Amino acid sequence: MTTAPWRDPALPAAARVDALLSRMTLEEKTAQLYGVWVGAATDGEGVAPHQHDMTADHDWDELITHGLGQLTRSFGTAPVDPALGAQALARAQRRIAEAGRFGIPAVAHEECLAGFTAWQATAYPVPLAWGASFDPPLVEEMARRIGRDLRSAGVHQGLAPVLDVVRDPRWGRVEETIGEDPYLTGTIGAAYVRGLESAGIVATLKHFAGYASSAGARNLAPVRAGVREFADVTLSPFEMALREGGARSVMAAYNETDGVPASADPALLTELLRDQWGFTGTVVADYFGIGFLETLHRVADGPAEAAHAALAAGIDVELPTVKCYGTPLVEAVRAGEVPEELVDRAARRVLLQKCELGLLDEDWNPEPTGPVHLDSPANRAVARRLAEESVVLLDNPDGVLPLAPDTRIAVVGPRAADALAMLGCYSFPSHVLPHHPEVPLGIEIPTVLEALRAELPDAKVAFAEGCGVSDPDTAGFEEAVARASEADVCLAVLGDRAGLFGRGTSGEGCDVTDLRLPGAQGELLDALVATGVPVVLVLLTGRPYALGRWHGRLAAVVQAFFPGEEGGPAVAGVLSGRVNPSGRLPVSVPRVPGGQPWTYLQPPLGLAGEVSNLDPTPLYAFGHGRSYTSFAWEPAESPEAEIGTDGSYDVTVTVRNAGERAGAEVVQLYLHDPVASVTRPDVRLIGYRRVELSPGEARRVTFRFHADLSSFTDRSGRRVVEPGALELRLAASSADVRHTARLTLTGPTRVLGAERRLLCEAEVSAAG
Amino acid sequence: MTTAPWRDPALPAAARVDALLSRMTLEEKTAQLYGVWVGAATDGEGVAPHQHDMTADHDWDELITHGLGQLTRSFGTAPVDPALGAQALARAQRRIAEAGRFGIPAVAHEECLAGFTAWQATAYPVPLAWGASFDPPLVEEMARRIGRDLRSAGVHQGLAPVLDVVRDPRWGRVEETIGEDPYLTGTIGAAYVRGLESAGIVATLKHFAGYASSAGARNLAPVRAGVREFADVTLSPFEMALREGGARSVMAAYNETDGVPASADPALLTELLRDQWGFTGTVVADYFGIGFLETLHRVADGPAEAAHAALAAGIDVELPTVKCYGTPLVEAVRAGEVPEELVDRAARRVLLQKCELGLLDEDWNPEPTGPVHLDSPANRAVARRLAEESVVLLDNPDGVLPLAPDTRIAVVGPRAADALAMLGCYSFPSHVLPHHPEVPLGIEIPTVLEALRAELPDAKVAFAEGCGVSDPDTAGFEEAVARASEADVCLAVLGDRAGLFGRGTSGEGCDVTDLRLPGAQGELLDALVATGVPVVLVLLTGRPYALGRWHGRLAAVVQAFFPGEEGGPAVAGVLSGRVNPSGRLPVSVPRVPGGQPWTYLQPPLGLAGEVSNLDPTPLYAFGHGRSYTSFAWEPAESPEAEIGTDGSYDVTVTVRNAGERAGAEVVQLYLHDPVASVTRPDVRLIGYRRVELSPGEARRVTFRFHADLSSFTDRSGRRVVEPGALELRLAASSADVRHTARLTLTGPTRVLGAERRLLCEAEVSAAG
Repeated sequence: MTTAPWRDPALPAAARVDALLSRMTLEEKTAQLYGVWVGAATDGEGVAPHQHDMTADHDWDELITHGLGQLTRSFGTAPVDPALGAQALARAQRRIAEAGRFGIPAVAHEECLAGFTAWQATAYPVPLAWGASFDPPLVEEMARRIGRDLRSAGVHQGLAPVLDVVRDPRWGRVEETIGEDPYLTGTIGAAYVRGLESAGIVATLKHFAGYASSAGARNLAPVRAGVREFADVTLSPFEMALREGGARSVMAAYNETDGVPASADPALLTELLRDQWGFTGTVVADYFGIGFLETLHRVADGPAEAAHAALAAGIDVELPTVKCYGTPLVEAVRAGEVPEELVDRAARRVLLQKCELGLLDEDWNPEPTGPVHLDSPANRAVARRLAEESVVLLDNPDGVLPLAPDTRIAVVGPRAADALAMLGCYSFPSHVLPHHPEVPLGIEIPTVLEALRAELPDAKVAFAEGCGVSDPDTAGFEEAVARASEADVCLAVLGDRAGLFGRGTSGEGCDVTDLRLPGAQGELLDALVATGVPVVLVLLTGRPYALGRWHGRLAAVVQAFFPGEEGGPAVAGVLSGRVNPSGRLPVSVPRVPGGQPWTYLQPPLGLAGEVSNLDPTPLYAFGHGRSYTSFAWEPAESPEAEIGTDGSYDVTVTVRNAGERAGAEVVQLYLHDPVASVTRPDVRLIGYRRVELSPGEARRVTFRFHADLSSFTDRSGRRVVEPGALELRLAASSADVRHTARLTLTGPTRVLGAERRLLCEAEVSAAG
Repeated sequence: MTTAPWRDPALPAAARVDALLSRMTLEEKTAQLYGVWVGAATDGEGVAPHQHDMTADHDWDELITHGLGQLTRSFGTAPVDPALGAQALARAQRRIAEAGRFGIPAVAHEECLAGFTAWQATAYPVPLAWGASFDPPLVEEMARRIGRDLRSAGVHQGLAPVLDVVRDPRWGRVEETIGEDPYLTGTIGAAYVRGLESAGIVATLKHFAGYASSAGARNLAPVRAGVREFADVTLSPFEMALREGGARSVMAAYNETDGVPASADPALLTELLRDQWGFTGTVVADYFGIGFLETLHRVADGPAEAAHAALAAGIDVELPTVKCYGTPLVEAVRAGEVPEELVDRAARRVLLQKCELGLLDEDWNPEPTGPVHLDSPANRAVARRLAEESVVLLDNPDGVLPLAPDTRIAVVGPRAADALAMLGCYSFPSHVLPHHPEVPLGIEIPTVLEALRAELPDAKVAFAEGCGVSDPDTAGFEEAVARASEADVCLAVLGDRAGLFGRGTSGEGCDVTDLRLPGAQGELLDALVATGVPVVLVLLTGRPYALGRWHGRLAAVVQAFFPGEEGGPAVAGVLSGRVNPSGRLPVSVPRVPGGQPWTYLQPPLGLAGEVSNLDPTPLYAFGHGRSYTSFAWEPAESPEAEIGTDGSYDVTVTVRNAGERAGAEVVQLYLHDPVASVTRPDVRLIGYRRVELSPGEARRVTFRFHADLSSFTDRSGRRVVEPGALELRLAASSADVRHTARLTLTGPTRVLGAERRLLCEAEVSAAG
């Protein structure tokens, strides 16, 4: 018996795929272009229908007759024992392979943003917390662990990371982003991709592109953005994660920008992504996104037109389940309305990726090769470390933190004693378990209250919930105020409940009209402050909230962003002083609840105070975060220099731990461009480095600035480096500049191509 | 003595200007390119510095040595008796003419949006009220009167109308706009222009372009908009006011859009405006806007670069006073840094306009030719009629309005007894008199309270202020609640105080972070509603405010938008029933205070409810307004048709006054485009007609729809008419469709040029 050529690993992938394609019918080729979510609604109306038993659906056999491109979330929509789930997936894969003529299994994908979205899998901190850590290597390590766990369960592709740049914090999915800065998002996002891909998992960059900029921050609302904002802010992290991370898949976004839906935009999905950036992987649809071209965007008159538009734009795979790319597409090709070449183009990409993944190989075997344990102690250690690094101490004016070990503490608030307070919307417990109320969490998640009691065994800790997360009932205030009044210090543990579409105060579809703390929590905080007892505000949120109302009236403010299963001990560790806080804000914290959209990336007129009665400056700036120790910054000599528009310049600072405790400083480098041919942000982050320092220790941080990093999109749409003055601002936050190096770029304006430098590398060395 | 050729009206204007230009020095040419605001700060830092005595400034002689392009607001910044002011202006003009070698006076400009911004001049309703009237002929009549009054005082140019389309009602200048629809703005704006220009006054379209779309609605903040939104929404009213109105000047806007400041954008000010649209008038700077290119936008390194950028973009005149276009420009031209042709180009335009205005003529005479009386009874009659037509009855569920003549009425609220409650920010009393507290208003402005007492002499009217406009003090609630409790009905007269830069709750620089009623007024309304006495809410505002909190709890809601000096009687007339309300909303009234930006021009995903927990629909829709009578709508036959992509179709409806009182219905025509190549607003206004009807009377309204009206900007930037289905929706508001005609456009996609149809004319005829 001879091996079919496509099954022969010795042949080049292209030849194997050619051999396959030449043998496939139209139905077999289109079958590679869609996923199946067994039992899911296929009408495109529901956004997240539920997964049922994979083997129970009566259409299953019919669906896989011609093969199948993708298997959708076999773990991610119901609580299954991971080992049993892996076996079930393997069985399904065998069945798919056997059903078609060529023995090709599906690509199995799952959600995995802050951990594999499966029962009993580690729930890591959410991306906003990764941003707060300013620690790409640690995020990479986390993603590697997520990738290995996915791999161990038979999964090939993960629908992460989210690289949307926050443009309006009212959006419900802010918790899924890495923050409001494209450089931070791109560098952390690239690290995540490297981790996931290093485990053999196809990382999927999403949502490509513009999704976070929806008008009014309503999920899926139209995006108003011009081409320059789009190029310099929105697209930039995707480019970094492709070039510096090596992601092999991209998800087309739901949204439209300036009238053009991303899912029907060849300029975005093909001309930019493939022709200009050189991407060769697959582009997948966001769930039901192709159907939305007909039903919600109305740029297509029926499923076949939607399929045509998406395929022509460059979407290779319809997710989560077959609708437009099935019968409507086949019929349209047969009728001559859609060129078969478009089907071939997409099928080739899917099959090449399957080939790369070993799914075409003769010795392909879907069975798990080892134990499937998704929440190992090593996972938890990484989850803990990342959580600890991500907690941001916003304010501590009188040093009330760390707490004394034997103090009387009133812990108050609806987030103190709820394990789910630690998790974001795409964690399995928040995402899936609400549909299975009888099923336990599956992982251990200490609450802040539990962790604090463990952390401070000599303290007298009382607790009162005070109020719910989102309901307006204030009946519990009395008890809360009583507990606070009896204590030396009151911890107000407030924040969000993550959930989908109205089941939470943060998460997909949980948008808000302003940045007031949810429900009665703001009033609760008022009542606690009114007691006169020092109040430490501890926030567990998916977005920043307006805190100006309490400015100067709180003893301390601790901001955590859904810190994951080890978040309780991490927050408690900061409160107790076991952990020296080192997180920095990846999003600005505003003064007042209204006034959005706003981000720190403002050109001068976005910051000007005299032209409007509104003060646009935030209460706590992007990059801000305090420590229990203090750091002295000493610049190197010669802070003025002249370089060419293709030159580079090393800017150095020495940071010394001037306090008594070990701690980490995040050295940030911002670019200020005084005059340019288009308006530029007053400052933008172009480099950063987290530096751990023992008491008294000093380290030199040298950023290698290259002129490419000053580039932007000019009026004619080219990316250029313009000559002229620049300032490199070494800073502890976007509003706390410590030293400035003044550069003059000389020479002609340079037009950059795809080969340009994206990163500002930092070197750290010992200093005297 | 022979006449100089440029002074000879018998010669063609171009020849006269050529003769002048060939004789002028560089200094003389540049002197034509700026205004002078004597005594004003010239550093560009202050946005609206004050006018001092025109003859007192010691620099005056020096400033006009080489001539002068413009005289800035000699009436508009201090209270002067109009007749004396006209004489002073004439004297200044003689002096300017005599100072230069060529005897050329300046163009004198003034603000005149809702009336000549001069002491003792008529204060008409603000533009938002014009929008509410849906009555272009009446607005044209008002503008003709404004123009004649300007002319009588020696003024040549008026800095109006404002054609910015509301994109976020939080912006302080919403009161200056005609609302959130480009068609309404364009048609009413064109009518205003026709009126002003018919009196010989140069109308100035502003702000070109994008100013209303500032991010977060902060004045002058950067604009996020794509090219399609810009073309189809922002630019459209300007095109209409140029083509259908004949405006001879355009003001460059302060803002940037997607990184490019309008004042430095040749694509906007020259390629589009002149090359494509054929505009031949002057482009003037917004006050200090050229200097802002250096100081606030930072796209220019110094005043000379700012001058160069603005001149090259196409700004002919620097206002309000010389800065960049003076010495910096002259020196830059001498140094070879700015081509002298740019100066010549601008000077030619300015001189051609002066020639057109008769300012170069031999017999030029600046003295007033008649009495200068700026608030004639005829003016007041127009102000009254427009005010009456602009009052919008939002709700009257139980028919509590009109008020019974002998009822007990509690009039409560900070806007009931203040004459300034009637006026917008650019009225003289709001704009200038705050700097002259000793000076009386100069015009009679009855308050709502006074007018109501006059209107209902048999009613028992009690009054309590309740609270201030913007302060949080609630001390007056007790008395207000007492007055309400004693009455049969309570009128809560709430709203804004217009002012500049923090002196008001509405007006330039008075932006808000959400749409809550200002100060304690919302709480006052709560307290009044709690009495159980029927509460009629009467709003005198410069923007819509969120009213969802009181929905279903008010006896009636009356919305007026700064209705001008006759606004008190107009509002009282609606309350008493003397006036049957006929205003329609030019802006949506939202349910909740947050969630901006939002306008009714939403593509389907901007309206979709299931993808976000937020409800984007307004409480009262664009176009909504009730009457004391009722109207029956009867469609004509054949509501389905097929036309070519260059065809037209007449859609007819008969409207009958089915009630007992005379009244006016506003028949609105909306376009719904089910499928297009880019996303389209679900509906947009493409025609309207206000129809006055006696009881029982019926009239046929026929809209002549042309396929051009369905055109939009496609992906490649062309304006196209696409074949396919369309719906013409005859409606009483954007949310109240009465009849639909279904069209199919056949034939190929048509690409339109500048010759396309912009208007949907309506014919009204008697019906059986």
